[in-house]
Amino acid sequence: MEVVKDRSLIKELEEIVGPRWVDTDPDRVLSYAGEYTNDAFDQLAPEPVPGSIVVKPEGAKEISEILGVANKREVPVVPKGGATAVAGNGIVTEPSIILVLERLNNRIEIDETNLTVTCDAAVTLGELLEEMESHDKLHFPLHPGDEGAQLGGMAVMNAGGVRAVRDGIMRDQITGLKAVLPTGEIVDFGNSSGKLVKNNAGYDLTQLIIGSEGTLGVITEVTLKLKPIKSAGATLIIPFEERGRAFAAVPAILKEGIKPVAIEYVEKDSIIASAEDLGKDWPARSGEGHLMIILSEDDEEKLYSRAAEIENISQNYGGLNTLIAETEQEQRDLLEIRSHFVLALDNELIDIPDITVPVSELDRIMSEIESLSQEYDAEVTMLAHAGDGNLHPFIMKSDDEDGKISDEFYKFKRKMYEAAISMGGTITGEHGVGLMRKKELKLQYTERELEIMKSIKRAFDPQNILSPGKIFEMEKR
Amino acid sequence: MEVVKDRSLIKELEEIVGPRWVDTDPDRVLSYAGEYTNDAFDQLAPEPVPGSIVVKPEGAKEISEILGVANKREVPVVPKGGATAVAGNGIVTEPSIILVLERLNNRIEIDETNLTVTCDAAVTLGELLEEMESHDKLHFPLHPGDEGAQLGGMAVMNAGGVRAVRDGIMRDQITGLKAVLPTGEIVDFGNSSGKLVKNNAGYDLTQLIIGSEGTLGVITEVTLKLKPIKSAGATLIIPFEERGRAFAAVPAILKEGIKPVAIEYVEKDSIIASAEDLGKDWPARSGEGHLMIILSEDDEEKLYSRAAEIENISQNYGGLNTLIAETEQEQRDLLEIRSHFVLALDNELIDIPDITVPVSELDRIMSEIESLSQEYDAEVTMLAHAGDGNLHPFIMKSDDEDGKISDEFYKFKRKMYEAAISMGGTITGEHGVGLMRKKELKLQYTERELEIMKSIKRAFDPQNILSPGKIFEMEKR
Repeated sequence: MEVVKDRSLIKELEEIVGPRWVDTDPDRVLSYAGEYTNDAFDQLAPEPVPGSIVVKPEGAKEISEILGVANKREVPVVPKGGATAVAGNGIVTEPSIILVLERLNNRIEIDETNLTVTCDAAVTLGELLEEMESHDKLHFPLHPGDEGAQLGGMAVMNAGGVRAVRDGIMRDQITGLKAVLPTGEIVDFGNSSGKLVKNNAGYDLTQLIIGSEGTLGVITEVTLKLKPIKSAGATLIIPFEERGRAFAAVPAILKEGIKPVAIEYVEKDSIIASAEDLGKDWPARSGEGHLMIILSEDDEEKLYSRAAEIENISQNYGGLNTLIAETEQEQRDLLEIRSHFVLALDNELIDIPDITVPVSELDRIMSEIESLSQEYDAEVTMLAHAGDGNLHPFIMKSDDEDGKISDEFYKFKRKMYEAAISMGGTITGEHGVGLMRKKELKLQYTERELEIMKSIKRAFDPQNILSPGKIFEMEKR
Repeated sequence: MEVVKDRSLIKELEEIVGPRWVDTDPDRVLSYAGEYTNDAFDQLAPEPVPGSIVVKPEGAKEISEILGVANKREVPVVPKGGATAVAGNGIVTEPSIILVLERLNNRIEIDETNLTVTCDAAVTLGELLEEMESHDKLHFPLHPGDEGAQLGGMAVMNAGGVRAVRDGIMRDQITGLKAVLPTGEIVDFGNSSGKLVKNNAGYDLTQLIIGSEGTLGVITEVTLKLKPIKSAGATLIIPFEERGRAFAAVPAILKEGIKPVAIEYVEKDSIIASAEDLGKDWPARSGEGHLMIILSEDDEEKLYSRAAEIENISQNYGGLNTLIAETEQEQRDLLEIRSHFVLALDNELIDIPDITVPVSELDRIMSEIESLSQEYDAEVTMLAHAGDGNLHPFIMKSDDEDGKISDEFYKFKRKMYEAAISMGGTITGEHGVGLMRKKELKLQYTERELEIMKSIKRAFDPQNILSPGKIFEMEKR
C-alpha cells in the first residue's frame, strides 16, 4: 500500500509527533522528496516519487518511536536535512516516511573549556557561522559550500570543501555524535559527553557513522571542535603557465611549514567567465591557471612573511606576478567568484563529479580527463582542491545534444572513474555515493569489501528501512 | 588437539613460509605469547599459554595463505607486533598460530610530493624516527612511548601518547592501510595508493580497523602523514599550587591560538621521585603540581613570544615561576624524567589505567580518584595529558598486601571507571580493551551497541579465528 494511503500508519505517526507535524499534502511532501536539481542533473538522478508522508519530530525520543513503527511495518524512512547533497543521497525513490529534521535546531552551545560547540542536528552551517561571529576568540573553520547544509547531514556526509587544507574535513572536527539507530535505540557511541578526543574502547562506531550517508542512523546532535581565530588574513592569486608546475609548488609550500586554509587551482578562462557572470573582476589575466591560496595567520607580520615565502617558492616553479587581496571585501569577492563557478555554469552542467587522487597525480588525472573529453566529445572545465587532490571536473552539455544526455557521456564518466582509481584515487572524495555512483563503487572495492559493508548495514538496520538503496542495494526488501 | 602437536598443520604452514619460518620450540614460542609484564601486572593479565606455533611470514601473500589454512582448520591466529601494548591485547590465551610480523620491515618510503611515508607494518617507531632524522624538512610528529612499537600495531591500537595536542593521535596520521582480512583477502580499503586524504566512497573501513586491536585484520602496510619540522623548541615547566587552576589555564592558552606539541600535568612529588630514580634533576620545586608544556615553533622569536604569552596566561591562573628548558639536552632530560615515571614505579605498580574525560572534567575526576583511593586504601599517583583529558592513575601495591592483589583494588578500579563514564568519559583513551577491560566495556556501551560491534567482528571474521576473545567474547568458537 502506498504509504500516504495507510490511515493507520498516519494515525500512529500523529500519535507520536502530534497531527500538526505529520504532512500528507502531495505537493509539499514531494517538495521534500528531492535535493539539488537542474535540467540535466534531473536526467541523471532518479526522480523523487510521490506517495510519501512527511513527519517532523522534535527530538531523539520521537525519532526513536517513529523508527519503531517503521520497523514494525517495514516502511522505509528517509531522513532529510538541508537537502544540499548532490549525489542523490537523500532522494526519495519509493513511498517512505520522510523524516524531516528541521525542528531539531534549538541548541547551539559553545563550551569555552573544551573548545567545542554542541548543536542540534538541524542547525545549519549558516546558523552556526552566524552564532560564532560574535565570538572573539573561537570559530568553526570549515565551509563546505551551501550554508543551508545542516550539521547532522554534514556529519553523515563527511563534508569537505575548500577550507580543508589546514583544518581537515568534517571527520576531523567531530568530537561526538548522538543518534537514533534504525532499530530505534538512542545512542551516543560510548561518548556521552560528545567531547572526548581520545576513546579507544571497542570499535569506533562514531567514525563509522561519519560518511555513512544516512544509512546507519539518524543523527540528532553533533559536537564539533572550535578553533582559535587568526587575526590576519589574505588571499593570494598566483598565475602559472604550466599546470603541472603550479601543482608542484604546492608541496614545496607545505613543506616549509606554511599551512594555508585553502589551496585551490582554477583554470583562468573559466574563473574569468564566472567573475563576468557575477559582474565582478578577477584580478589576474596572465597564465593558463591560477593557484588561489587563502592564508590566515596570527598577525600581519607573519602574514606578509608567509605571503613573501609563497611568492618566492612559486617563482621557482614558474609562478608569475602574485596578487594579494587583503581587504575583507576583496577576499570575499574572490571566494564568491570561486563559489559562483558552479552557478555560472549551472544551465550547461550535466554533472559535477568529485574524484580524488593523491596530490602527486592531480596533473596526470587532469591531462587524462582532457584527452578523454576529446575522445568522447565532452566539454569539461575543472577546478581542483590542490591541497588535497580533490578534483571537480564540471561536465557540460554539448551543443548538439538537444538536452538529452548521450551514451558518450556515460562512457566518458566511466573512463574518468577508472582513470582516477588506476592512479590510486577514489570515485568520490566529497559528495558520497548516494544513488548515483552505486555501480562505480564496484570499481573501487572488492566483492569481499562490499560484502562487509553490507553486513555492517545489516547489523545496524536488519530490516533495511533507513535510506534503503543508498550506497548499495541490499538483498532484503 | 594442541596446535603445536598437529603435524599436518605444521607441514602446511611450512609449505607456505618455508620450514625456517615455522617455530615450535616451546620456550621461544612462549616468549612470543605475552606482552608487557611485571609481578603485579601478571596477576591481572591472563597468563600466556604454551602449545602454540610461531609463524613468520614475509608479506601479505603468505599471511593470506596462513589465514586460509587457519580458517579451514578453525585454528586461532594472534598477530604479534612489538608486544608493547599493556591491556593484554596480544596475549595468547589458547594454543594458536602466533603470526609474528617482524619480517615485514623492509620498506620505509618517503614521498616528498604527497608528504607521506609508507612503511611495512613491522617497521618500529624507533626505526621510522631514525630514518626521518636525516630529513631536513619533514618529520613524524607522534611519540606514543615505547620505540619498539611497530607501526601496524600502533595503527590497529590507535596509539596516542604525549605529543597529541597539536598533531593528534594515530588515527589523524594515517592516510592509508593495507591489510589481510581474517578470511584471507588482501585489501586496501578502496585506497590503493594509501595516500588519499578524502575518500567518501562507502563506509570507511580504514577508520574501523584503526582501534580494532588486531581483531578485524592483519595490517601489512601503513601510510602516514609527515609534518614540517619546526626549528625552535622549548619545554616549559610551570608550577601551580592548585591543580584545578592549572587545568583552567590550558584552554585559556589554547584559545589564544597557541598550539603546543604536548601539555602534561605531573604531580610534583612523583616527578621529583622519578628524576631522583634516574639521577637527574627536575628543575621546579614549588607548587603541588606542574604543567609541562612542549613548544615547537617556526623560529626563536615566535618561540619566545609564545613562551611569554603562556607565562602571562598561567600567572592569571596562579602559575608560579615558569622555567624554560631550551637546549636539546635539557629538554630530552625532562621528557626522559616524565617517561621514566612508569619505570620508576614499576616494581610497585599494579595497573596503569588510561581513562579519559572531557578536559573540563580532569580536576573533578582526579579528586574523585583521590577520594576513592582513600576509601579503598589504594595508593595512586597520577599523570595527565592535560591537553586532551587523558589520565593515567598509576595504582600501586599497598605495603600489607604481600604481593597479592586485593579485592579492594578491583572495587576501586570499577568505581574509577564508573566515575569516568559518569563524567562523559571513556574507560580507555589509549591502551584499548584487550583482555583486561572486557567487563568494563559494558559500563560504557549499550547492549545494542555491543551487539553491533560483535556483528562487525562476525562480518570480518565469520569463524572468529583472529585474536579471538580480545575486546569481547563471541558466541562461536
